[in-house]
Amino acid sequence: MAKEIERKFLVANDLWRIEVQRTVRLRDGLLAFSDGRKVRIRFYDDRATLTVKGRRKGISRDEFEYDIPSCDGLVLLADHCDGEVLEKSRHHIQFGGHEWIVDEYHGILAGMLLAEIEIPTECTRFMHPPWLGPEVTGKQKYRQTNLIKAYAQARSSQADG
Amino acid sequence: MAKEIERKFLVANDLWRIEVQRTVRLRDGLLAFSDGRKVRIRFYDDRATLTVKGRRKGISRDEFEYDIPSCDGLVLLADHCDGEVLEKSRHHIQFGGHEWIVDEYHGILAGMLLAEIEIPTECTRFMHPPWLGPEVTGKQKYRQTNLIKAYAQARSSQADG
Repeated sequence: MAKEIERKFLVANDLWRIEVQRTVRLRDGLLAFSDGRKVRIRFYDDRATLTVKGRRKGISRDEFEYDIPSCDGLVLLADHCDGEVLEKSRHHIQFGGHEWIVDEYHGILAGMLLAEIEIPTECTRFMHPPWLGPEVTGKQKYRQTNLIKAYAQARSSQADG
Repeated sequence: MAKEIERKFLVANDLWRIEVQRTVRLRDGLLAFSDGRKVRIRFYDDRATLTVKGRRKGISRDEFEYDIPSCDGLVLLADHCDGEVLEKSRHHIQFGGHEWIVDEYHGILAGMLLAEIEIPTECTRFMHPPWLGPEVTGKQKYRQTNLIKAYAQARSSQADG
């Protein structure tokens, strides 16, 4: 088990792009969500993981992540997420002694960028890189579960229209 | 991934007890449940597993089960199932060339017995042992998710009373 403590920000400009050290393509699907807990299937390139995230307490939550066979991951993503799969490129950037990630969404959320820093304690201080926008930690709209819902709704409107 | 195809029955009498070949103590907790899918943490004695069960199609459903470290399992069961943990003894019995299980519930559901047979196809035929009661396959009331809810409600009534 890990404790996930992260702060999330919008991105103000494109300066982060020249600092990227590593990029991984992620595909996320939501298997189940109830009472603030969620269970997610994720592909990091070709590596599949199953993740249980506990209820949030402030900006932290318990996280349990396990590698699973990628053939299982493909079936879970295709048949058990109601097609609500989110794709993004996760860019890793070092700044001020911490690792930042910038998530660049694809598909219907293309153009959306979110920056995150994972910190060891809730009160850990860190420098803000020059490309950082306003903080959105804890804002409902920017939680991935809600982004996935927005994605599904937008897709369903497209299908209806 | 496995395909779970099972039929479930009540138990008519105690004759099954003399046929038991093996008994395992199970503890089940429901981590998340949405849109007919469920994610469960289970202890088989000291072995912990995380299981994703897909939506039912008739009497079958996809099932994905993974071993996880038992220290994680203990935290998941204690902190992430809202205390809704179901305990039962699972008795294994051979009859007519098939393996039957009889689940004997403990705690607030003590006294409840359910028999199950897992079969390779939906139309596999099997002999009924002399202790078998009426079939309850597909009956909402006897689904474990609903048994867990009933358990939680009964416990909450006890606390209120």
